[in-house]
Amino acid sequence: MNTITKPTLLLDKARALRNIDRMIGKARASGARFRPHMKTHQSAVIAGWFRQRGVAAITVSSFDMARYFADHGWRDIMVAFSVNLLEMDALNRLAADIRLHVLVESPEVVRFLEQHLQPGCSVSVWIKIDTGYHRTGIPWDQVGQVLEVARRIADAENLGFCGLLTHAGHTYRACSNAEIAALYADFTGKLQQVRRHLTAAGFQDVEISIGDTPSCSVVEDLSAADEIRPGNFVFYDVMQFMTGACHEDDIALAVACPVVAKHEERREVVVYGGAVHLSKESLAVPGDHGKPETIYGYLAAPLVHQGQKLDVSGWGRRLEQAVVTRLSQEHGIVRASEAFLRQVQVGDVLLVLPVHSCLVVNLLREYLTLEGDIINVGNLHERAGTPSGRSHIS
Amino acid sequence: MNTITKPTLLLDKARALRNIDRMIGKARASGARFRPHMKTHQSAVIAGWFRQRGVAAITVSSFDMARYFADHGWRDIMVAFSVNLLEMDALNRLAADIRLHVLVESPEVVRFLEQHLQPGCSVSVWIKIDTGYHRTGIPWDQVGQVLEVARRIADAENLGFCGLLTHAGHTYRACSNAEIAALYADFTGKLQQVRRHLTAAGFQDVEISIGDTPSCSVVEDLSAADEIRPGNFVFYDVMQFMTGACHEDDIALAVACPVVAKHEERREVVVYGGAVHLSKESLAVPGDHGKPETIYGYLAAPLVHQGQKLDVSGWGRRLEQAVVTRLSQEHGIVRASEAFLRQVQVGDVLLVLPVHSCLVVNLLREYLTLEGDIINVGNLHERAGTPSGRSHIS
Repeated sequence: MNTITKPTLLLDKARALRNIDRMIGKARASGARFRPHMKTHQSAVIAGWFRQRGVAAITVSSFDMARYFADHGWRDIMVAFSVNLLEMDALNRLAADIRLHVLVESPEVVRFLEQHLQPGCSVSVWIKIDTGYHRTGIPWDQVGQVLEVARRIADAENLGFCGLLTHAGHTYRACSNAEIAALYADFTGKLQQVRRHLTAAGFQDVEISIGDTPSCSVVEDLSAADEIRPGNFVFYDVMQFMTGACHEDDIALAVACPVVAKHEERREVVVYGGAVHLSKESLAVPGDHGKPETIYGYLAAPLVHQGQKLDVSGWGRRLEQAVVTRLSQEHGIVRASEAFLRQVQVGDVLLVLPVHSCLVVNLLREYLTLEGDIINVGNLHERAGTPSGRSHIS
Repeated sequence: MNTITKPTLLLDKARALRNIDRMIGKARASGARFRPHMKTHQSAVIAGWFRQRGVAAITVSSFDMARYFADHGWRDIMVAFSVNLLEMDALNRLAADIRLHVLVESPEVVRFLEQHLQPGCSVSVWIKIDTGYHRTGIPWDQVGQVLEVARRIADAENLGFCGLLTHAGHTYRACSNAEIAALYADFTGKLQQVRRHLTAAGFQDVEISIGDTPSCSVVEDLSAADEIRPGNFVFYDVMQFMTGACHEDDIALAVACPVVAKHEERREVVVYGGAVHLSKESLAVPGDHGKPETIYGYLAAPLVHQGQKLDVSGWGRRLEQAVVTRLSQEHGIVRASEAFLRQVQVGDVLLVLPVHSCLVVNLLREYLTLEGDIINVGNLHERAGTPSGRSHIS
């Protein structure tokens, strides 16, 4: 591997493949369709690792991302985001090319879809159910609303009703595997109860789709779901580690950050690596004397001295003695023990385990594997043409 | 202006030009060199607005950004970031092309620069002083350290000693103009005291460079400084507004976000506009009953109904009744009054005033002006060539 010169997103491909294989095996054993979320890695190359293992259906978080993966040969894509009516043109173009799945949570949106889909096009529709996260979706106990939306979908010739979908994002706030398992039992129980109402009303083959990485990682038998859509598991991160969803050595990303200054008097190291590299996603962890402390990343061994090359064995355990405590646009502040400070010199490179992989990937947009290959994140901002009436100034 | 379909960064060019003209006028009246920071807008087009007004010297936050602006004709650039020794190749290429200013805070880095600059190249060097922000720099009261570094710079044939530089980032935490003015008096006083020690030791023409937007906005007479380097003032944002550094109608950016769901039972609107658009930069503001509340943006009038075009008069005042309270990767949650909720429909567009302009620009990478022009942010990730030993996979 080449010498690092600036903040660089390192990818341990072996760890990522192990994470992928484990989740594929679990989906298969549970009899659930595996529809992994691509928003975490946003890369056609990494999506290819799933395809090589027999995965045919994927999840994305925007129509732009769906277009990128459709252009890379994917033919069964769910946009796991409540339909944005203003992107009906993009939706129609996708519906003409692929089997497109969308989410709805109101009768008005169902009617809009029915009326604005181009002739000959159809989409697969899921009802978003709020099972306790309280972000989006029809509350699970509002069965009347769910039935009304399901009937509207079933009545529309160009819409196919698939089932009930939830994102149980409240598992991200869990602190133990037992807590995650209890939440999983709770939200799948709620979905099954809603399904029983739909079945009693005459709806058949109503599927259940779930997606949070903590549940999919911790629960062994996922057969309560017909489909699972985790995304973050491909890399994991410090947030997942803190919930208990992964082990430290499952974390497949680290950000290599050069040391630019050392302040022994306040036991701090300044790295080139700030909010535009690590994002401002933070986590409250137990700090000194048990007091909660806000962090932006942990450090992992080894410390890479100036001119030294990082070898393909990658990084190891989290260092107890050093943590990223503050970020500005390009600067990161690492608080370190005296023993750690003694080893560090300006020009060394520190390896930071990110709090939230998805946001770091979205910012850095380029992976460097331990084998020395560069993998790009897809350019979702690329426009096929300049919309009329707008002129580009450059 | 065209209809908005997805999260879009709107730029009110008239406000930005007014902000620029005001700061140029103040620098001139104070007799201080104006070296605006380009990290906020990252755009050669917007840099051109400064050039048209006679600005010749600029500040950037990385060697990549310096390269981008050097390629667009700028010849006097400061990289306001403690020198990253690992980018010596990039530094040498820049030093060959332009008048390059760099920051140091240790004798070791000065020696490294002296030894690794290519023959025939020289750089202008500033000593970074910590005047109370405690991020980087030599503490202002460590005069012995400052003198040692200054002597090393003066002794090196290829280094030119320019003066003392600070970033008084602690003004961002101020809550009133009086507090900002008091901090300004404090940190410029400290810098002048350090300069007196340098003058007494025989150093001549030692300049003082300051950069925080709150001081440069609030203090009328900036003549205590020889150079000012503010950046954020070009657009301002909610964070600056809360410090008192700007008025609401100075904020020149808003993010247009489509409404995708409405949850009247919990008085929330869900918008397409999340952490990958607004960043996770947050602010604690007084909420209901004075309890501090974390927010990710305020809303501004008007509410743009579906199909309606936003006119060139742009946006107005902040709406008291609606605030962005949560963000996930693509979703934003807006908490709103019942009166506001009654007006909003799925498919409308809300205008969000960002907490931190610099991070939003870095994420969205494209401006749409109220006149309908698109301005791109520079592609700093572009590499001239593939470094040897790395293969691109796509």
